[in-house]
Amino acid sequence: MSTFREDGALALEWVASYLEGVREARPVLADVEPGAIAEALPAEPPEDPEPFSSVLADLDAVLLPGVTHWQSPRFFAYFATTGSEPGVLAELLAAGLNQVGILWRTSPALQELEEVTLDWLRQLLGLPDDFRGHLEDTASTGVLAALAVARAQQPDRRVVACSEHAHSVVDKAARLLELELRKIPVDDEYRLRPELLDLEDVCAVVATVGTTGAAAVDPVPAIADACAESGAWLHVDAAYAGSAAVCPELRPLFAGWERADSAGVNPHKWLGVPMDCSALWTRRPDDFREAFSLVPEYLRSPDDAVNLSELSIPLGRRFRALKLWAVLRCFGRTGLQERIREHLRLAALFEGWLREEPGWEVVAPRHFSLVCFRRHGSDDENERLLERVNASGEVFLSHARLGDRLALRLAVGSFRTTEEDVALAWDVLRREAAA
Amino acid sequence: MSTFREDGALALEWVASYLEGVREARPVLADVEPGAIAEALPAEPPEDPEPFSSVLADLDAVLLPGVTHWQSPRFFAYFATTGSEPGVLAELLAAGLNQVGILWRTSPALQELEEVTLDWLRQLLGLPDDFRGHLEDTASTGVLAALAVARAQQPDRRVVACSEHAHSVVDKAARLLELELRKIPVDDEYRLRPELLDLEDVCAVVATVGTTGAAAVDPVPAIADACAESGAWLHVDAAYAGSAAVCPELRPLFAGWERADSAGVNPHKWLGVPMDCSALWTRRPDDFREAFSLVPEYLRSPDDAVNLSELSIPLGRRFRALKLWAVLRCFGRTGLQERIREHLRLAALFEGWLREEPGWEVVAPRHFSLVCFRRHGSDDENERLLERVNASGEVFLSHARLGDRLALRLAVGSFRTTEEDVALAWDVLRREAAA
Repeated sequence: MSTFREDGALALEWVASYLEGVREARPVLADVEPGAIAEALPAEPPEDPEPFSSVLADLDAVLLPGVTHWQSPRFFAYFATTGSEPGVLAELLAAGLNQVGILWRTSPALQELEEVTLDWLRQLLGLPDDFRGHLEDTASTGVLAALAVARAQQPDRRVVACSEHAHSVVDKAARLLELELRKIPVDDEYRLRPELLDLEDVCAVVATVGTTGAAAVDPVPAIADACAESGAWLHVDAAYAGSAAVCPELRPLFAGWERADSAGVNPHKWLGVPMDCSALWTRRPDDFREAFSLVPEYLRSPDDAVNLSELSIPLGRRFRALKLWAVLRCFGRTGLQERIREHLRLAALFEGWLREEPGWEVVAPRHFSLVCFRRHGSDDENERLLERVNASGEVFLSHARLGDRLALRLAVGSFRTTEEDVALAWDVLRREAAA
Repeated sequence: MSTFREDGALALEWVASYLEGVREARPVLADVEPGAIAEALPAEPPEDPEPFSSVLADLDAVLLPGVTHWQSPRFFAYFATTGSEPGVLAELLAAGLNQVGILWRTSPALQELEEVTLDWLRQLLGLPDDFRGHLEDTASTGVLAALAVARAQQPDRRVVACSEHAHSVVDKAARLLELELRKIPVDDEYRLRPELLDLEDVCAVVATVGTTGAAAVDPVPAIADACAESGAWLHVDAAYAGSAAVCPELRPLFAGWERADSAGVNPHKWLGVPMDCSALWTRRPDDFREAFSLVPEYLRSPDDAVNLSELSIPLGRRFRALKLWAVLRCFGRTGLQERIREHLRLAALFEGWLREEPGWEVVAPRHFSLVCFRRHGSDDENERLLERVNASGEVFLSHARLGDRLALRLAVGSFRTTEEDVALAWDVLRREAAA
C-alpha cells in the first residue's frame, strides 16, 4: 500500500492543481486535429510494468492537449456541468470499493443508497411520493428503458410522439425499439403544440422540460391530459432543467410532471455530480420489473429482495449513488438552490447585455440558465462568429437551429462560473463580432 | 482547493486502509437484512452543507456493513474481479477531468485514448487487426448493441440463437429487440451443439467462450462455419474468459473468435480494471454506424471526425479508457500474464484437492480459473452447504445449475488472491461439510 499512498498523493495533487488552474486552462475547446492524440500514443501495448508516475506524466504531455475543459468555468457549450469536489472524491471511494451491483446482495449498500438518494432527490425536486427512482448512466438509457416499458404495456401501438425539439436520444430509442417516431411541430416558443397530438396509435409521449436547443418547456399539463385520455405512457425528459426544481420558485415551470409515468433528470448535468449519473423515476415500477426482470439460476439468491437490475437494462451497475450522496450532503438543499439561482442570475445578466446592445438579438424565451441569441446577419456569419469565438480558446459556446435560423447558445451550468467569466464570454463575442 | 486537498487526503487514506484490510474484512458477503441500510439512512434529504468528513464517517458507520467485499481476495463468487490500484487512481483522475464524451471534439483525448487502448487490448488478446473497438459500460449493453446491428442487417430474420448456457444478457437483449431467442442444447461439457443449429431465420448467433455457469467453451469454429453459410452475424461473448487470451498458451481455447462479426471482453472482470469497463470489437464498424448514427443539428461540429457515440447506444460516455490505459501500463503484458497464470494455477490446485478428497466431485471440465464442483449428496444438501459457507463470512462462493444438478462454483479472479486464500476456502468448505 505504500506505492498506492504515494501514487495516490500524486494523483490527488494532479487533480487539485488541475481544478485550481482550470479557469485559465486554454483552449477550453481542445484544438487538435482528429487523430493527433492517437498518433502521439504508442501503437503497441506496453510490454512491462511502468510506474503510475509515467501515466501521470503522459496525461500531461500527451492527453491534456486533447482535453476539452468541461470543468472550466468558461465552458458555456451544450449544457455546462460540474464535477464538484465531493463528487470527484466519492468516485475515488467508489472505485476503491469496486462494488458490482448485479443483485441486491452483491451490494446492499449500493442498491439501498441508490434508492434512498433517489428518494432524497425526488423530495428536493418536489416530485410525488409514489415515484420510485434508480440511476442509469445517461438519459439515452433512461429514455430507452421507459419507452421499452411503454411498448411492452401496449404492444399494438407502435408510435412514440414528441416535439420536433425533443432530444435525439428519443430518435435513437425509437429506432432500437422499432417504433415510429412522430415529431409534433412546436409553437413560436419552441413548445410542443398539444392540439396536434393524435395519440390513437401512440404508446408513449416524451414531453421535454428544458429542450436541448432552447430549453423550452413543453405544455406538460395538456400533454398529460391527452395521455390520460388515450392511455399513452407519459415520459418527462428534464435531463438538464430538472435540477432547477430544487428551487420552489421555479416549480411552476414543471407543472404537470408529477403526472408522468416516468421522468428523468441528470444530476451529472446541473447538480454537481460527475459524469455519469442520470436519475429515472417511475410511478409504475412493477411495469419496469415486468419488462426487464430476468433472474437466471446462477443469479438466484436466498433472499427475496428485488434487485435494481430487474428494473433496468444493464445487469451490472457501478456504485454511482455514492457521488450523488456526497454531493447532496456536501451542498445540501440550500447550497444547491444557491448555485442554481446564481446561474439564473448570470444568465439573466447576459441576456440583459444582449438586449441592450444594438446588433444582437435574443431568439428564445429564457426560463433557466440557457440564453439563445444571435448577431444580426446571416446564419453563415453567425456560424463563423461562433467558430472564431471558440478558436480564441477563451470560452466555448455551441449552437442550435431554432425554426429556420441558427442560434448561438450560452449555457451557464458550472458551479465555478462567476460573473467575470460570463463577462469574458460577452467581451469575446463582441470582439470577434467586430473583427 | 485547500479543502479539496484535505478531504482528498482523507478519502485516499480511507481507500488505502480499506484495501490494506480487505483480506480480513468480514463478512465477505454482506450480512444484512433487505432494507436495513436504507433504514439507517435519514429519510429526508440534507438541508445544509456538511463537511466531506461526515460522508466518510457514515460510509464507515452506515454503509460498510452493507458492502459485499468484491475487493476481498476471498471473494470467489460469480466471477471474481479486481479494482487494481492504478485503475482506482485513474478513476480519480477521470472524475477530476469530468470529460463528457458525446462528440469527438467534446474530448478528443477520451475518444482517441479509447480507440488506442482498445487496439492495444486487441493486440494483447491476439484478435485480428481489422477489429475496431470501443468501450461499453457492461456486456449487457455490448450484446444489445451487437444484436441490434445484426437485426438491422437482416430485418426479416427475427431469431437469435445461443446455447442454453449463454448469459441472460442475451435473453434481455432479445426481449428488448423483439427477437425470438432459440436456445440450443449443450453437450456433456456444456458446449453448444453446433449440429443442432438451424440458422435459416436467424440474424445472429451468440457463441460463448467461458460461460457463466461452467466457463464452458462453445465450438466457435463450427459455429462460425454455420454463420458464414447462412449469413448470420456471429457475436462472441468472452466477457469473463477473454482476458485469458493475453496468455498465448491459452489461445487455442479462443479458436474461431477471430471470425466473429463482433466480440466482447470485460476488462472489469479479469483484467484489474474497476467496474465498469466492457470492451466491444467489431470488424463491421460501418454497420454499427449505420445502426446508431444520429447527429442532430445541435451536435453538428465543424470537424469531420466520426464520433464514438455514433457506434453505440448511449450518447454520452465517461472517460473509461483512462483506467484501462493505467492498468495496461502499470501491469504491462507480462504483469497481466503473470496474474492470469497464477489464477489458473490456484484453480488447478483447488481442483486437485477436490479430486483427492473422497466425498467431493468436480462436475465440469476446467479451462480457466473457475472450478465447478459439489459435495456428494442432494442438491438441497449442497445448497445448504453453500449457505453455511457464505454465512461464515470467511469466503463467498456462488452456484450454478449444470444439467440437472446444482454445482458450487469457486472463481479465482482477484489479483490479491493467494494460495492461502484458496486453502482457506477449501478449509471452510470441508469444515461446513463435516458440520
